[in-house]
Amino acid sequence: MNPENIRIVLVNTTHPGNIGGVARAMKNMGLQRLYLVAPRDYPNEQAVWRAASANDVLDSAVVVPTLNDAIGDCQFVVGTSARERRIPWPLMDARQCAERMALASGREQVAVLFGREDRGLTNDELKVCNLHLNIPTSEDYSSLNLAMAVQIVAYELRMLTSPAGQPSSAVDEWDAPFASRENMERFYTHLEEALVDIEFLDPAAPRQLMSRLRRLYSRVRLDEMELNILRGILTETQKWVRRGRDSER
Amino acid sequence: MNPENIRIVLVNTTHPGNIGGVARAMKNMGLQRLYLVAPRDYPNEQAVWRAASANDVLDSAVVVPTLNDAIGDCQFVVGTSARERRIPWPLMDARQCAERMALASGREQVAVLFGREDRGLTNDELKVCNLHLNIPTSEDYSSLNLAMAVQIVAYELRMLTSPAGQPSSAVDEWDAPFASRENMERFYTHLEEALVDIEFLDPAAPRQLMSRLRRLYSRVRLDEMELNILRGILTETQKWVRRGRDSER
Repeated sequence: MNPENIRIVLVNTTHPGNIGGVARAMKNMGLQRLYLVAPRDYPNEQAVWRAASANDVLDSAVVVPTLNDAIGDCQFVVGTSARERRIPWPLMDARQCAERMALASGREQVAVLFGREDRGLTNDELKVCNLHLNIPTSEDYSSLNLAMAVQIVAYELRMLTSPAGQPSSAVDEWDAPFASRENMERFYTHLEEALVDIEFLDPAAPRQLMSRLRRLYSRVRLDEMELNILRGILTETQKWVRRGRDSER
Repeated sequence: MNPENIRIVLVNTTHPGNIGGVARAMKNMGLQRLYLVAPRDYPNEQAVWRAASANDVLDSAVVVPTLNDAIGDCQFVVGTSARERRIPWPLMDARQCAERMALASGREQVAVLFGREDRGLTNDELKVCNLHLNIPTSEDYSSLNLAMAVQIVAYELRMLTSPAGQPSSAVDEWDAPFASRENMERFYTHLEEALVDIEFLDPAAPRQLMSRLRRLYSRVRLDEMELNILRGILTETQKWVRRGRDSER
């Protein structure tokens, strides 16, 4: 695990005290990189007070206007989510998810997104995530304080560095780097183009096809070699379409 | 585990906001019983504000003058402690300790003690404990906020009640059944056939291609709808190959 490759991203936080609480929770568990997407009221002395001795985390926090500014260079994006969401998405609890993040952080940029205090992340924000993370809570009162949620995720990451909590290293040595978001977007564009070429996708009536395929491939986390294989298949397929069309001229 | 037999005991808490934060952390994780040993400033509206919807936990909190009043009837007492203490004592991390507490709570009264914000529990207080509990932290900044420490312990207890492994919702709420092994094998056969057809895969020199693709799709766990989409794409692709070949006859 490389904590320097893991960033905590707070989206549209309302209360500055929570930002300070998050900074302290992070530093207590050895995390340093905080991104604030359009915070409502920041900087603010409440944040400084709650951060206690974690003011260095606050001072180096990156304030950005949009989510994309915070995660554009990330290969692995996790969104925290309440249990019941309308879009089904790969969902893990904080413990399982921490293992995945820790492994990924060895050579990738990892982001964990936390939404607004009152209503979390939007569906659009959740859709850019590779995984959704859920923290088990009581049914009687499931709304965790924002800084508490960050604390639990940061704690689970920390546990992986203590001798007892080491994850089995089966996936440790992946043989190719995972694809960046940019390269994934290029793949989706190529895929859509090829599906239109073979007349599997009707641009006039695309239905849910591309979002289903996006969900599939964001779930798997393609590595660069796999991405090259898939794009190679698309390119070959497109050649056959051209040959078929030429013959009809 | 019986959460009704587990109490959280705060000793000489200074900041009432922390008491409210503790109440919320407890209720979020399904704990109800809070004891306050000689709190510095309580009741206080800061506590009510931070408790949010956990005011029932605050309202039923038992305020007592001495530690003994809070734990006299307990069979199992755990004290939270920073890592390096002068008195050697059985020490466990929060995860191991939660298991012991959960087991004991089946028929015993269990208490977890949390000390003062600035200096924790005294040696005398630690000596009445059966076990000491330590939450792993970064060496750079090991002082956890009081409510955060309670949150982590309560979370570890909660994790013991949630079904082990994959959280049910990840699978339960998926909108299509996952593919059977049989159907996956049919898909791989079809995929291989199509890759040979488009001349992307050379049967005489297949290299690692199919095993890379198998690894990719077994990692993702395809659902039946996704499988149908992928097989539909293969079928359309094969039609174009036939058209291209027919034209060359």
